Amino acid sequence: MPDVGPMRHALSLAARGLGRTWPNPAVGCVIMRESRVVGRGWTQPGGRPHAETMALAQAGDAARGATAYVTLEPCSHHGKTPPCAEALIAAGITRVVVALGDPDPRVNGRGFALLQSAGIKLTTGVCEAEARAAQEGFLSKVILGRPMVTLKLALSWDGRIATATGESQWITGPLARRRVHAMRATHDAVLVGAGTARADDPSLTVRGLGVSHQPVRVVMSRRLDLPLSGQLARTAQEVPVWIVHGPDVSPELKSVWAGLGAELIEAPVVYGQLDPKASLEALGARGLTRVFCEGGGALAASLMGAHLPDHVALFTAGLAIGAEGMPGLGALGIDRLRQAPRYALQRVEQIGPDALSHWKRAQPTD
Amino acid sequence: MPDVGPMRHALSLAARGLGRTWPNPAVGCVIMRESRVVGRGWTQPGGRPHAETMALAQAGDAARGATAYVTLEPCSHHGKTPPCAEALIAAGITRVVVALGDPDPRVNGRGFALLQSAGIKLTTGVCEAEARAAQEGFLSKVILGRPMVTLKLALSWDGRIATATGESQWITGPLARRRVHAMRATHDAVLVGAGTARADDPSLTVRGLGVSHQPVRVVMSRRLDLPLSGQLARTAQEVPVWIVHGPDVSPELKSVWAGLGAELIEAPVVYGQLDPKASLEALGARGLTRVFCEGGGALAASLMGAHLPDHVALFTAGLAIGAEGMPGLGALGIDRLRQAPRYALQRVEQIGPDALSHWKRAQPTD
Repeated sequence: MPDVGPMRHALSLAARGLGRTWPNPAVGCVIMRESRVVGRGWTQPGGRPHAETMALAQAGDAARGATAYVTLEPCSHHGKTPPCAEALIAAGITRVVVALGDPDPRVNGRGFALLQSAGIKLTTGVCEAEARAAQEGFLSKVILGRPMVTLKLALSWDGRIATATGESQWITGPLARRRVHAMRATHDAVLVGAGTARADDPSLTVRGLGVSHQPVRVVMSRRLDLPLSGQLARTAQEVPVWIVHGPDVSPELKSVWAGLGAELIEAPVVYGQLDPKASLEALGARGLTRVFCEGGGALAASLMGAHLPDHVALFTAGLAIGAEGMPGLGALGIDRLRQAPRYALQRVEQIGPDALSHWKRAQPTD
Repeated sequence: MPDVGPMRHALSLAARGLGRTWPNPAVGCVIMRESRVVGRGWTQPGGRPHAETMALAQAGDAARGATAYVTLEPCSHHGKTPPCAEALIAAGITRVVVALGDPDPRVNGRGFALLQSAGIKLTTGVCEAEARAAQEGFLSKVILGRPMVTLKLALSWDGRIATATGESQWITGPLARRRVHAMRATHDAVLVGAGTARADDPSLTVRGLGVSHQPVRVVMSRRLDLPLSGQLARTAQEVPVWIVHGPDVSPELKSVWAGLGAELIEAPVVYGQLDPKASLEALGARGLTRVFCEGGGALAASLMGAHLPDHVALFTAGLAIGAEGMPGLGALGIDRLRQAPRYALQRVEQIGPDALSHWKRAQPTD
């Protein structure tokens, strides 16, 4: 498997873009000539330049006769940049190894066809499973029309996020909170419900990690009744704030929020709540591929009840709060255990005094 | 540290007795002569013979001039067996290495004094921390007058043990349930509340592991209102059943249960519930050193509210049941987070599809 090593290298480059290339996929590219790396590239912040462009520029003339390893099928359509398949051909690349086809209807095999028609030797499916996992957000947006969702839960043993009197700081320790910031940084957006936005007045930014890129901050607020003097309102000009709201919101309130710099997204209401699936589809239509949901309990239950979270990151703190405490997950309307969506354990970690378990939805829905 | 290897060996022998030597401690002994193991022993089921007796019998004449490694101070008092300190002297042992002193008031340094007055070279404190952990149940009984308590919780992410309709089979998978049986086997007793005994009609025995020894089955039932046709009632002649009950129980009901073979233990009632601390002290007075509590939610909350569990074994299954589900831990009466007892994470494991985290009470109470 001589192709696996360079492809793993390309995958590690691709990972650098996670959370900052949307609406484009985070792709990695390595150009090898006579067993030497002559070019490395990854999708740049904002989605351009593409990985292949960057790697070809680095390789220069050395690209002639070289092999390109790309984690996703090179694009074939003229968008804001010329197609990468053409660029590879023009540079004189003679072999292309790809991990995964691009299901985007504008590509979807056309990139491969372009390369082959130019006489380039093509190998596909190298490290496909790893590439699929890395591209999960982009694939979800293209195939399901909505971003991949990671639901973060930070709970006591007994599933509580606060005492009955509302005290919630802190359940988990500083190392866990730091890890949450790192998780935010690899997602396109951070999502919370209106209750959390009101109760905690969070900034939802990435702090303390030397990361300059900030994810979009999304709040689900059916009535758009968020504090106009809160952190999100005050900083909407600096870091994007998107608010998903219901149809029954006054134009005046909307223009106040628009004036503060927020982007307003209307979504339908079902059973008195914002439809979680339609809301995510609205976010997908605006280009988001990876969303990190941090609660609260009502939003977490709404997403979970619709089987929408693809991943759950569960921080468990070493204490019990008791049945009077505030549940981290609201009502789900489940009578029978088989109605509960099941998740497979991926791995467990110790984060200082807290446990962190990673779970993946067992069966894809939709 | 040439003594560490043989002491670790003795500790691994001691572990064989966990759950089956009560009221005695589970001790291990290794006799070394000229770098060879000439005798190995561990406390036998029921607590006798002691580890030293078994190891000396195996060593025979080879004990003369040898070194004995013992995980706990050899006993000095004439009980049902002659004191081990005297046996070591009589066998001609010339050096004794001990991990930990025995705080039992009948020993408490007298074993050491006996050995030294016979001219035996004594080294103490080798692997003391490991020995203290292994002897935790015995130390708890001697020092605090109650057994060590391990609380098992098997919960959904959101801390539930059943749906609103009471469906609880199964939250965790077969591998986790098998692990629970292995945990039962290393404890002297399995403890449940009356609600669980009524709802689940459990047998609470160790099954499927080829283990012949069975822990005592203890039920906390203030009113002694347990089903007379349940599994525990039917099998009380085969495997011990102890019932902790309140003072306000009719003599007729008590004699029915006594006739079935159960041992009845009266404990005081506080705030309408069996006093959890006094109940554990009553179990300690009957010799139990290690108790494995499997719930339900009311008993778990009663123990947790009194800061009594020394360890928590938390199985987390990959699903959410929602806020209508049955909580695995009842009300604790906690307003402020600092009132909640904090536990330190010891380690995390994957048990098939479930996570298992092990926690230890951060500050000892009492």
